[in-house]
Amino acid sequence: MRFSRRSFLSSTTAVGTGLLAAPAILTGVAAPALAKAPLAGAQGASIYRFKVGDIEVTAIHDGEGARPLDAGFVRNAPLEEVQKVLANNYLPTDKLTITFTALLVNTGSKLVLIDTGFNDNGGPTNGKIAAGLKAAGVEPGQIDVVLLSHFHGDHLQGARAKDGKLVYPNAEIMVPAPEWDFWMDDAKMAAAPDGMKGAFAGVHRVLKPNAADVKRFKWGDEVVTGITAVEASGHTPGHTAFVIASGSAKMMYVADITNTPVLFAANPEWKVIFDQDPDKAIATRKRILDMAATDKIRLSFYHASFPATGFIAKEGAGYRFIPAQWS
Amino acid sequence: MRFSRRSFLSSTTAVGTGLLAAPAILTGVAAPALAKAPLAGAQGASIYRFKVGDIEVTAIHDGEGARPLDAGFVRNAPLEEVQKVLANNYLPTDKLTITFTALLVNTGSKLVLIDTGFNDNGGPTNGKIAAGLKAAGVEPGQIDVVLLSHFHGDHLQGARAKDGKLVYPNAEIMVPAPEWDFWMDDAKMAAAPDGMKGAFAGVHRVLKPNAADVKRFKWGDEVVTGITAVEASGHTPGHTAFVIASGSAKMMYVADITNTPVLFAANPEWKVIFDQDPDKAIATRKRILDMAATDKIRLSFYHASFPATGFIAKEGAGYRFIPAQWS
Repeated sequence: MRFSRRSFLSSTTAVGTGLLAAPAILTGVAAPALAKAPLAGAQGASIYRFKVGDIEVTAIHDGEGARPLDAGFVRNAPLEEVQKVLANNYLPTDKLTITFTALLVNTGSKLVLIDTGFNDNGGPTNGKIAAGLKAAGVEPGQIDVVLLSHFHGDHLQGARAKDGKLVYPNAEIMVPAPEWDFWMDDAKMAAAPDGMKGAFAGVHRVLKPNAADVKRFKWGDEVVTGITAVEASGHTPGHTAFVIASGSAKMMYVADITNTPVLFAANPEWKVIFDQDPDKAIATRKRILDMAATDKIRLSFYHASFPATGFIAKEGAGYRFIPAQWS
Repeated sequence: MRFSRRSFLSSTTAVGTGLLAAPAILTGVAAPALAKAPLAGAQGASIYRFKVGDIEVTAIHDGEGARPLDAGFVRNAPLEEVQKVLANNYLPTDKLTITFTALLVNTGSKLVLIDTGFNDNGGPTNGKIAAGLKAAGVEPGQIDVVLLSHFHGDHLQGARAKDGKLVYPNAEIMVPAPEWDFWMDDAKMAAAPDGMKGAFAGVHRVLKPNAADVKRFKWGDEVVTGITAVEASGHTPGHTAFVIASGSAKMMYVADITNTPVLFAANPEWKVIFDQDPDKAIATRKRILDMAATDKIRLSFYHASFPATGFIAKEGAGYRFIPAQWS
């Protein structure tokens, strides 16, 4: 039990005026004046719905993870320049909090989860998609398709719980063929530097047990009616964006063409440590951001601040992410 | 029941291959392949929690209202200039969607609702605070204090339901004394232009029945431990901001020092039609935005996009609102 200075003072006053409550007399401790509702102490489930034509999209926040901000995070910019951009955006300069936002897409005929967060394979600050789905009124067994943009752990680990069970037991898992080819290649896994062996092992943990059931798609395929895979490689060899379209409406889920757009939309030539082919990643990033700014296409990012959906404006030598108005 | 082109095609195929499902044979209509979960069709309850020292603040979205964008909305700027700013921010240029975000503040000893939205006195696109409180785990009867920034309908109507009942039956209603003095003055009400008579009537509807119980405070008063009233007049005669402070942490709820900051933080000298004393409103706006930019104080606006909380940077001749990263 916590005493505020005010409640201490008011209980002192109460003693002075003879109004001390009975329990306090018995215990020698005055009860503080607590609000009628306790502090919640945690963020609520974070979901945000919007329409793309007849399709209903729900952004679901998996949570966040923090990493120290060291000189290696952006390979080709001085730490001070990175810190300056963060400070200008009122973000901490000693660490980077990376946020995760998946998309639940109800096309009317299929319920599709694009990327999966961590489920119980991460830490206490993430793995919130289960709570988000519950808030959205969706049971895991109702998901028809789990669609992966690429095989980094924050996108794929949530497909299989720590105990080995599939989190979405009735869903078909659909993955980019070039991503599968890279990560499932035993020779590439053997040749991987030590720092990447864990990533390979994580992919194998999730996808190997049901490998025969995993549907591999090509760029250009309409993987589910209304959802088309688009080449966006560089971040990983098979990194894929998805165009979601209904009637004349469309948007694009761009996954990790940037890490946080605060840094990498504003500075599209910065090389983030996570990009496996940095030059290709930069070319992809600039191509898609330029398309979005020119054609005014709505984008959803995996690592923008929740709900992580909005528009792109050209600004200076880079781009600015403009979150959509909450509606 | 709605048929997508795809489900039509697949049922046609089914006929051709003899795989038509029995119910379709009986009814002559093939069942479309619906997703296992229906479309939700509406936004979820929108709440967002953050801490200010030991105080827990929950932004609660009451919803929105649209108004046509005419030349009179900004009194001293050409319509085309206003439309240009909206277009640059990917907002419609024919109407303005104004959003409403109240704050629930749990100081640990008091549960305070700052501004109330519409409850059932508005339209179908607002009055969502009840749902937000429910999502936050709070019953209306637990609210200790209803604190009003000023007496415009979108801030105050939600204190009393359409049927005349107080929405927060156990709450003390606390209001700025100069706001009370203006709106409760029968001579001012009689002298008001026709366009303002409804606003006066609305204030009287909400506050007159329990007038003796309404607590009036002065600027500078710590109205609840941790919450101090700050003069912010111009928008209305008694328009009040609130500093919320705990330990060394503080923020400011600035209510309507701007309508949407997209327009009026960027152009602080623009006069919005709702400001009763436009010159004073501009001076207040610039003073508070400048303080926030200089001292890096977190602000919450009533009319920013949900969760409507973040920071202010100087930009050009005005300011930019930088939403806080969702955490």
